[in-house]
Amino acid sequence: MSVSTAALDQSICAPLPVLGADVTVPLVTGGDVTYAALDYAASAPALQRVWDDVAAYAPYYGSVHRGAGYLSQLSTDLFESSRTTVADFLGCRPEDQVVFTRSTTDSLNLLASALPADCQVFVFETEHHASLLPWRDARVTYLDAPRTPAEAVATLERALAGRDPHGPALVCVTGASNVTGELWPVKELTSAAHAHGARIVLDAAQLAPHHPVDIADLDVDWVAFSGHKLYAPFGSGVLAGRADWLRDAEPYLAGGGASRKVARRADGGVDVEWHTTPARHEAGSPNVIGVYSIAAACRALTEAGFDRLVAREQQLVTRVREGLAGVPEVRVLSLFGDDAPRVGVISFVVEGWNSSHFAAALSAEYGIGVRDGLFCAHPLVRTLLGSEPQEPGECGAPEAEPGERSLNAIRVSFGAGTPDEHIERFLGAVRELVRTGARWSYRTEDGRCVPDRGAAQV
Amino acid sequence: MSVSTAALDQSICAPLPVLGADVTVPLVTGGDVTYAALDYAASAPALQRVWDDVAAYAPYYGSVHRGAGYLSQLSTDLFESSRTTVADFLGCRPEDQVVFTRSTTDSLNLLASALPADCQVFVFETEHHASLLPWRDARVTYLDAPRTPAEAVATLERALAGRDPHGPALVCVTGASNVTGELWPVKELTSAAHAHGARIVLDAAQLAPHHPVDIADLDVDWVAFSGHKLYAPFGSGVLAGRADWLRDAEPYLAGGGASRKVARRADGGVDVEWHTTPARHEAGSPNVIGVYSIAAACRALTEAGFDRLVAREQQLVTRVREGLAGVPEVRVLSLFGDDAPRVGVISFVVEGWNSSHFAAALSAEYGIGVRDGLFCAHPLVRTLLGSEPQEPGECGAPEAEPGERSLNAIRVSFGAGTPDEHIERFLGAVRELVRTGARWSYRTEDGRCVPDRGAAQV
Repeated sequence: MSVSTAALDQSICAPLPVLGADVTVPLVTGGDVTYAALDYAASAPALQRVWDDVAAYAPYYGSVHRGAGYLSQLSTDLFESSRTTVADFLGCRPEDQVVFTRSTTDSLNLLASALPADCQVFVFETEHHASLLPWRDARVTYLDAPRTPAEAVATLERALAGRDPHGPALVCVTGASNVTGELWPVKELTSAAHAHGARIVLDAAQLAPHHPVDIADLDVDWVAFSGHKLYAPFGSGVLAGRADWLRDAEPYLAGGGASRKVARRADGGVDVEWHTTPARHEAGSPNVIGVYSIAAACRALTEAGFDRLVAREQQLVTRVREGLAGVPEVRVLSLFGDDAPRVGVISFVVEGWNSSHFAAALSAEYGIGVRDGLFCAHPLVRTLLGSEPQEPGECGAPEAEPGERSLNAIRVSFGAGTPDEHIERFLGAVRELVRTGARWSYRTEDGRCVPDRGAAQV
Repeated sequence: MSVSTAALDQSICAPLPVLGADVTVPLVTGGDVTYAALDYAASAPALQRVWDDVAAYAPYYGSVHRGAGYLSQLSTDLFESSRTTVADFLGCRPEDQVVFTRSTTDSLNLLASALPADCQVFVFETEHHASLLPWRDARVTYLDAPRTPAEAVATLERALAGRDPHGPALVCVTGASNVTGELWPVKELTSAAHAHGARIVLDAAQLAPHHPVDIADLDVDWVAFSGHKLYAPFGSGVLAGRADWLRDAEPYLAGGGASRKVARRADGGVDVEWHTTPARHEAGSPNVIGVYSIAAACRALTEAGFDRLVAREQQLVTRVREGLAGVPEVRVLSLFGDDAPRVGVISFVVEGWNSSHFAAALSAEYGIGVRDGLFCAHPLVRTLLGSEPQEPGECGAPEAEPGERSLNAIRVSFGAGTPDEHIERFLGAVRELVRTGARWSYRTEDGRCVPDRGAAQV
């Protein structure tokens, strides 16, 4: 997959309005500044359009499915039509199912619960934990980190060639890395999987917000993504794709909505007949607002012209790459090389800096929100840093003294709502921090790196 | 448990403002009317206070946990303090954990996944499917429907007396039935469970919105409830209670956030160290807005004076009971007798009426939203109706011709946001429909009962 540049000769659009664009935050050095949200890879702000749609719907919210009232029927229609909107957004095949979940993590855990017996799973060690860990009941082959897209394909080919060709198999791969932002060769990996009788699920958590995903064109079997990274942070996610494994599996959750008919047996037990539609895996009252917000985001991105958004984001990527390349102390993390195509997700370390302190200074002294840590992709980040597993933490990493090799990294990420000014402020702050140091000292408190207000200003 | 009447001598409060109170819907007979949402037991409207809190927070939404930015830290604090708010609302013991889920169904499936090996589960057949069905990996004893609260306790006592006293056991029981609204003798059932070395989880989906729940006072081991029935329809739920089984169990979902440390092993495999805090079962980016909305609802109900809300709701219950008692064709469904204490959830059938048509007429001709069907509690509703399992449906039931015995029921439910006028309109509509019949004919279309616009008006 390559990033589309078809729109580069069109006029580049402005950033899409998002909630929180005017929010100001206090600086430790005094005064306030508008907040620069540069942690889109964790969670993007809601598009204003998404919020407006949710706010317009909220008074009409009603229970879905068997409710007889007008608002229940309206809500049911809106819930089910959101399925169609998402299917269209993903280019689903007619026979595909769209199941609503709570997040990508949930989607992949659902698929893991639906694997046929004796399924083999193949997954690169470079995946986010949400893709790496759910396959608890399967035989999992972890693949070493490749250093080029071609090596990724070759590695998968080799692993699949060694498998029992008669049993079921699944490959799980990210579309864009949550650490490096690099695009993975999804089409080529899919061809390799299918050539060996394996299926493939695309973790599109980081791809879908930054690039159109066409399930039929990519030929993948399933796609998973989250609303909260797609400008719709209302607690819903999606698993879309082949119906057969899902239909044959035990329901993900047992409860109402998934059960078509429940009856006591003469022997005192209970017989359950489950649905075979997506409802099979959606037990409990659905998160109608969450689902509707995802559909609203799909519509908003499509109507804004997704290709134009991609083109603009790629300009920001170039700007960040060039800006960071001009600071010799900064090392950008990459598996596939500095020039590899990537979305607006870039991780780096700064020579002589504890990454947590650097991220804390970006926040406290510049009002910039980035993320530090191991980004729930511990093996990948350690591979990129050349470090060993250490204690602790919560997707985090231990402190390193200035001058030591970094044990964690800093990630800057952005998207459709990011104004140029946030990028320029970030680059200016990086240059200034590297050149003149932080103006405050920082310490770790409750696992969080904060300005040391007890200490004298540096 | 009895409904508190301590507040009856206080001045009764007005209904709490809710979203959608001014929404008008079209009548099939012409004109519009404000919508009467009387399906609270499925999903309650958002409290205006909850919506206001969500709307005020939304621009400040940020990724939680390892985010270094100001909004991430604010969001993390707000997420974790919501845990404390919910713990306070439920009267949790110091050692209890509050785990955020997506719904009661999800909470009970989580607990089911955390049962110790060889756990026996005891559950009445009268439970909602969310309580009846999640125990797929356990030995389940289904208990027959009791006809008095004392019989419920005796039935449980008998069943527990016959069990292996050395193995783990769990009782799952509703606090208030989602069909009859009747209160179950939770304290007595808890005493019985504990006397036999069993634990107990309270399904408070229908109790928590209508009555204060004090986990320490009730002495139950866990409580589960949903935001969307507690005026916070943003996709979150709660499981609160004992930490030990949860801490010892495999994580509910595998992924980031639940994993403390992940590393490749020398043999190519992957080692995972999981959290032992509630995060263990909350993998993936949490639904911060959903969680915050539940905390906002807890605050709003507490500040409004929950006892006063209970007292007012009980007046509405009395009004509905008396009103329906005045219509001889109406039979209210009850396990424990017409005078048994109950929350604002009342199901009934009308002689000579297909319940779906009756519910459709309430909607189309009066703008009243109730629910018809088997309410995801098929065995209970069939017991109450004296009917046999039939095809199909989606928590629903087949059509019955007028005059046949009803195969499904109508449920009216209400709560803190219900104005008196909705109750009066409902009772007037029931009387009128029974006396003069519907003004339109109704037919089933795509599983939904709708006015037959092709037919002449009746």
